[in-house]
Order: sequence, then structure tokens, then C-alpha cells
Amino acid sequence: MNKHYYVGIDLGGTTIKMGICTTDGHVMQEMERPTPKGPYFLVLDTFQQMLQDLLSQRQLKMENIAGVGVGVPAFLNVKSGFVYEIINLGWKEVPLKRELEALFNLPCFVDNDANTAAIGEMWQGAGRGASHLICITVGTGIGGGLILNGDIYHGSIGLAGEVGHYTIRPDGRLCNCGNTGCLETETSATAMLYYGKEAIRQGKPTVLKTRMDDKGNLTAQDVLDGAKADDSVCIEIVQHVGYYLGLTLAQISNVLNPEIIVIGGGVSKAGEFFLDPIRTNFRKFALKKVSEIAKIVPAQLGNSAGWLGAAWLVHRGLAKNGGV
Amino acid sequence: MNKHYYVGIDLGGTTIKMGICTTDGHVMQEMERPTPKGPYFLVLDTFQQMLQDLLSQRQLKMENIAGVGVGVPAFLNVKSGFVYEIINLGWKEVPLKRELEALFNLPCFVDNDANTAAIGEMWQGAGRGASHLICITVGTGIGGGLILNGDIYHGSIGLAGEVGHYTIRPDGRLCNCGNTGCLETETSATAMLYYGKEAIRQGKPTVLKTRMDDKGNLTAQDVLDGAKADDSVCIEIVQHVGYYLGLTLAQISNVLNPEIIVIGGGVSKAGEFFLDPIRTNFRKFALKKVSEIAKIVPAQLGNSAGWLGAAWLVHRGLAKNGGV
Repeated sequence: MNKHYYVGIDLGGTTIKMGICTTDGHVMQEMERPTPKGPYFLVLDTFQQMLQDLLSQRQLKMENIAGVGVGVPAFLNVKSGFVYEIINLGWKEVPLKRELEALFNLPCFVDNDANTAAIGEMWQGAGRGASHLICITVGTGIGGGLILNGDIYHGSIGLAGEVGHYTIRPDGRLCNCGNTGCLETETSATAMLYYGKEAIRQGKPTVLKTRMDDKGNLTAQDVLDGAKADDSVCIEIVQHVGYYLGLTLAQISNVLNPEIIVIGGGVSKAGEFFLDPIRTNFRKFALKKVSEIAKIVPAQLGNSAGWLGAAWLVHRGLAKNGGV
Repeated sequence: MNKHYYVGIDLGGTTIKMGICTTDGHVMQEMERPTPKGPYFLVLDTFQQMLQDLLSQRQLKMENIAGVGVGVPAFLNVKSGFVYEIINLGWKEVPLKRELEALFNLPCFVDNDANTAAIGEMWQGAGRGASHLICITVGTGIGGGLILNGDIYHGSIGLAGEVGHYTIRPDGRLCNCGNTGCLETETSATAMLYYGKEAIRQGKPTVLKTRMDDKGNLTAQDVLDGAKADDSVCIEIVQHVGYYLGLTLAQISNVLNPEIIVIGGGVSKAGEFFLDPIRTNFRKFALKKVSEIAKIVPAQLGNSAGWLGAAWLVHRGLAKNGGV
């Protein structure tokens, strides 16, 4: 038997992404299917069906697979693979690692999806070669994962890297969490929309008003497009986000002294235009030696980061247990 | 030969602290001597003399010593033990680990003194039993060390935990480093004095004025004493420090999810009175699950933390190489 492949799964609230890669992280085959609603065994059935389909697409067999890793949007015990809760899927207290091992009869590993995305970028993406990496995902909310000494850092109960509710502006506006001025409230795609709509409401002259009237709604992309087209309201919003993200990353980097900071999520696709104000503020607020080392770069793997990082869990797990 | 003891050294700009402990960290003997000024070999001579004296005080021999660890106030390469610079001592480019091993003919280990103080508190002090610890020292400046997964965390080039110039109040006053509102500028003993003198200058009614007139100078202790005696200017300063330290620790803890936060340094000797405003603000700004876990406690080892932590370097180093 040549157990030369890993399986990685990224379990999301809307879709399941799954892939097969070689033991050095080369992608063989990947696919995406909707996440079934209902009891958790429906998800496990889908896992099994997807894996069968992936294997047959590449004419591989279960015997070729060394193990399965899964990233879940959950608060969990990483060691035992016990998931306390996945709110979006209605899961409660699922012994996921045990269930997966029974299903696949293979070594299985589970971690938080923000962590698997971060380690995926270190293994095969923007963070290749780095051992100390901070990954921030700017989307509807703000997520994050820490890679320290070449491995996922979990903290005492698995909450490390959860920076969405990092208070960055104590006198800022109210967040759902009850606090004010959370990173999410100031810098997420949702925050950009809020500030755009607020400007429209205040009657400030902006292209966003026209977009809103034409399309009936707004996206963060509209704000970025407006800024590129020199709309002063949109520029102000991008600067605002750059200031608070740059300050936050400087604070975190003065504590952690990373080699690389990877920014992912939908908004980061705007590239340098979005990253430059972050970099400017980062350099302003970080220690000189710290900012000289830490590069701020966009994520490279897109939707594949999560499942590739989950496959890395197999890589790490089997190495710890004496190799494949 | 029974190599049952470790030697730890805390090299400071003013004094050298050295001690001998058992392999489980029980203190056998310790002493303190002034740091000689001049070329670095004078310091090495003092190390040797102090060790001879400590050994003879306990009727021990060099043969009983398993290794020597040293904490230095320096930017260094921890692996090679190469010290780039110790500004206070005028050292430049000293291969300290190599020199120590030649001197003692024993395994020697070197780390930054803030890190050895932090690991000392984990090994034998306020952080006993914890694996994830943040240590902050509030004195003339602000220092810090991180213990993650039971070991010192260095970051990519050894700057992790250096939180003195963490920007906590972007619109705050100018720091020596060129930035504004550094943690040091807002919360150190020096900052407390600054705010006390500023209040006197502005003619605010405060006991600090009387102290200043009586003694000709002020200390941070005067501010703490004033606050205990209900002086409103002093209370405001202690609240200010508690707010910014509490906010900073909440931010860092939302990233690192520690088990325990140890606060050391001269000012921390004021105990609960100093810690309570920090705790209040910490709980306000940290994620609930994060603040429920992380206890904020005063350091326990005082001046012995540094050398005990340096002795722990031997403990860790020899364990990695297959035990004593």
C-alpha cells in the first residue's frame, strides 16, 4: 500500500470543500458541495460520498490515503476532536474525530477553520517557508489564526487568534458582542458598508449613493471601487480600515514578532490598493526592527487554504506519531 | 558524580544575581554583587568568583553542577548565545554562550532577561502549573515575556514580548522612541511620576505637592500612597494606568488566550490596590471566555525570578539533549 495522499476538508456553514493532496502538499483534486442541513451524520455521509468521487476522479483508492483532516467553524477540543458547538449547523457536542475515524478507518484530525486556513497559507501559500505567521481574514466578520514555531498556536482553551472582538477603538460604536470599537466593527466588509451607508444617510456626495439607487444594495467591493475612482467618502473609509488594521497588526506584532502577516478574505482581493494603507499604518506604529522583518501580503490560496491546512493536520499528526 | 544542581545568573546593568537550585527548582543558595564596569571578561571573572563562593557556602563542587544559564538585558541570538549588544554595559558582539562554556566547561544557555524572569515565575512562582503565561514588568520602563506551550516564545528574531513600545494611545504624548502613546509612556513608574508632576505644575490640589516640597523629589510609591489616602489626583493616575494596562492585556489576551498574566516590577508591590483597576478594565475589554480563564496575579519571586528562570534554561536544554 502506498499511503501517499492526504485528504483535507473545510466544513463551512454553506459549503463543504474537500481535496486530496500529496504528502508534500501538491493538489491532486478538489471539489465543493453544499453543506446539508440537518443532523451531523448527513454531513458525514456527504464527506464519504465526496471522498469516493474524488478518489474515482483520480483513480485512487482508500488504501492510498494516509489520513483525513477537517477544519470546522467551531469551538472545540483540538486534542480529542470533540466539537462543543457549530452554531451555523446546529451541532452540539459531537465527538467528530471519533466519528470520522469510525467512518474512514484512518487517522483523523480536527481543528478550527481559521487555524487550518492559516496553516494552509504557511504550507502552500503566501507564508511558505515562514515559521511565525499571523493570518487575518477580512470578510463579513474578522477571523484570525496564529502560526508560531511552525505550528498552529491554540492558547489555553483554543481561542488564540480570535481577533474579531479585539477592542481597537474604545470610544467606537457598539458591537453585537456588547463592547464598543471591536476590530470587526471598524474594519470588516460589514463595517465598510456601514460607513458607506452612513455617509449616504448624512447626504455626503458619493458615488455610493448612485450605486445604491441603481442596484438597491451595496457591497464592500463598491466602496473599494469608489475609492479607486477617487470618491472621497470611499477613500476615507479605506483609510479608516487601513488605520485600524495597521494599528492592530502593529500592536500584535510588537508582542509576537512575526515573519509574515497574511491578509485573506473577500476584501483582500482588492490587493495592494487595500493593503497599502494597512502597511503605512503598520510601519508607523510597530517597532522598527519588528516592521522591518514582518511583510504584509495577500493570501494566495483563496478557498483552498482551509482544506489544504486541514490536510496539513494529517501531515503533522502522522509525523508526531512516527511518520507515514 | 551527582549533577543534581543548576546555576542561574541574572546579569543586570547594576547588579549580578546568581543562585544554585536543585533540578526541581528548589533554591539552595543565592547572592548578589555589583556588575563590574569595563570589558566583558571582568563580568566573566565575577561570575566565576561568585560561583566559587556559592559552592563553598553549600559545600558543593563544580562536579555537582549540571549547567549554567544566564539572562542578559540584550538583543541576542538565543540559539548560538551570541549577544549583539548590551547598551548599559557597553558590550558589543560577545559570543557569550561559547565564552561561558569555555569558562565553566559545562553546558551553558543564554536568553533575554525578561524571558528568564517570565519562565522563572512559571517554574517556581506565580505561574506554577501554567503553560500559557504573559509576564509584564512595570518599572522605570515596561518589559515583558511570553510563555507559550510551556516554553519561552521568542518570535522570528527574538523580539516577542517586548511590549514597552506597544502603541496603546495613538493620540497620547510623545515617547523617546519617536511614537506617541506607548505603553511605557502611559503606564510605567516613570509615567506615573510624569502625571503626578504635571498635576503639581497645573496647581491641582494634591498631597504630591507636599511630598515634593518635603523630600525634593517624588517616586511612583508616593503616587500609590496618595491614592490609598484618597488623594483625587493620585487616584486618577492609578485609574489611568489601570485603564491602559487593562486594555492592553485584554487586547493581547484576545490574541493569545493565556491561562495567567503575571505582573511584576516595583510598582506591582502595591498589590491588589494596583491590580484591581487593571482587572476591572481587562474584564471590560476581553472576550468573556478569555477573561474567565486568565487570572491577573502579582509576581511572587521578586529579584530571584531572573536567575531561577536562567537555571530553568539548563533544565530545558538538558532535557532536549536527553536528560541530565
